[in-house]
Amino acid sequence: MPMKILITSGGTTEAIDSVRAITNHSTGKLGKEIATTFLKNGHQVTLVTTKNAVKPTKHQNLTIHIVSDVASLKRKLEKLVPIHDVCIHSIAVSDYTPVYMTDISELKNTSNPETLLTKQNTESKISSQSEYQVLFLKKTPKIIQLIKKWNPSIILFGFKLLVDVSKDELIHVARVNLRKNHADYILANDLNHISKDKHKAYLVNQTEVYEANSKNEIAMLIYEKVTKDE
Amino acid sequence: MPMKILITSGGTTEAIDSVRAITNHSTGKLGKEIATTFLKNGHQVTLVTTKNAVKPTKHQNLTIHIVSDVASLKRKLEKLVPIHDVCIHSIAVSDYTPVYMTDISELKNTSNPETLLTKQNTESKISSQSEYQVLFLKKTPKIIQLIKKWNPSIILFGFKLLVDVSKDELIHVARVNLRKNHADYILANDLNHISKDKHKAYLVNQTEVYEANSKNEIAMLIYEKVTKDE
Repeated sequence: MPMKILITSGGTTEAIDSVRAITNHSTGKLGKEIATTFLKNGHQVTLVTTKNAVKPTKHQNLTIHIVSDVASLKRKLEKLVPIHDVCIHSIAVSDYTPVYMTDISELKNTSNPETLLTKQNTESKISSQSEYQVLFLKKTPKIIQLIKKWNPSIILFGFKLLVDVSKDELIHVARVNLRKNHADYILANDLNHISKDKHKAYLVNQTEVYEANSKNEIAMLIYEKVTKDE
Repeated sequence: MPMKILITSGGTTEAIDSVRAITNHSTGKLGKEIATTFLKNGHQVTLVTTKNAVKPTKHQNLTIHIVSDVASLKRKLEKLVPIHDVCIHSIAVSDYTPVYMTDISELKNTSNPETLLTKQNTESKISSQSEYQVLFLKKTPKIIQLIKKWNPSIILFGFKLLVDVSKDELIHVARVNLRKNHADYILANDLNHISKDKHKAYLVNQTEVYEANSKNEIAMLIYEKVTKDE
């Protein structure tokens, strides 16, 4: 029976002002591979992705939604999560969003830097005269922790990207993430082991660890787990 | 006689760590339009652009170089500027680059915030526990001010993007820029007057102001000035 699969891919962008932003690198290639695998097997795919991410080719069972920042991702997923069976949440979500940018001199003249956290830039394009600037950032809401609240019966795949850690550390962090985010699986990977032709990853649940060595193998692994749990 | 035209387009990106970066929005559409206009008229075009920018279709007289941050742009232009007749510098260049990112608590426990400017993040992916973080940024070198030093006889077109200012202010800032950067022309535009079909801009030199209302008109205007000065 065809399932309704919600996939997020790409990376969010948080505006500093009207011309600058903080982005999270993410090509969208893995999300594309996963989407293609489910489409090939007759499932309905909704892809929530970002402007610069690579997208799957058009397909009658594929719907694409474009989001930009964490706020727009949250609004979109709040609507889509309740009407899907599975959520494969591979988008790189910005963990901080800009609050206020100023010259280092304003910071030096402030006894308590926390008072600057309540300030806002009024100019559309923050001007750039001084040698150093300071950008204050605030944590964004953890979207993955909302998914099971929006739909307790959805099968949730979270993703955790680390950089230059051991396999043990990767699996340990994945297990912590699994519990914290009420995910059914976490796909843990290390940026140092991702290249054009290779993508090493571990798919972790409460008891098992499955290994994949390419984007295609990752997509196949996720596909197997979803259809096995069906 | 065919001229050698160097065009920069897109927007640079400055890494915060291995997964996050500060980007400058710029589609590359205007650079593409300008490149296409010169190619159509038999000139040699070298386009220095960024990964996500739109590019002209392949052409035997077109060479494309991809750069990422200001440092890579500088290295590339230092080689290319001396061997071109004209430089049309439309790329959006990051004016600041990340130095150090930390929790607000480290800032609160530091009597002189300038001491943090000499610090560096040692982790590949900066971790994200605290509610607020602070990112210190340093001014990047002004690439446009180096172009006439690298090649005093090059015809230099600079670009100035402002947001929500009057025509007088736009032209005033363009004239200041013209002198400061030793440019022959500045193309001044306002983000609020750029949309899908419209692109209002003023091409300013020491004595004249020329107006354009679309990317094609901007490209034609620049083309006329270059070939008139030939």
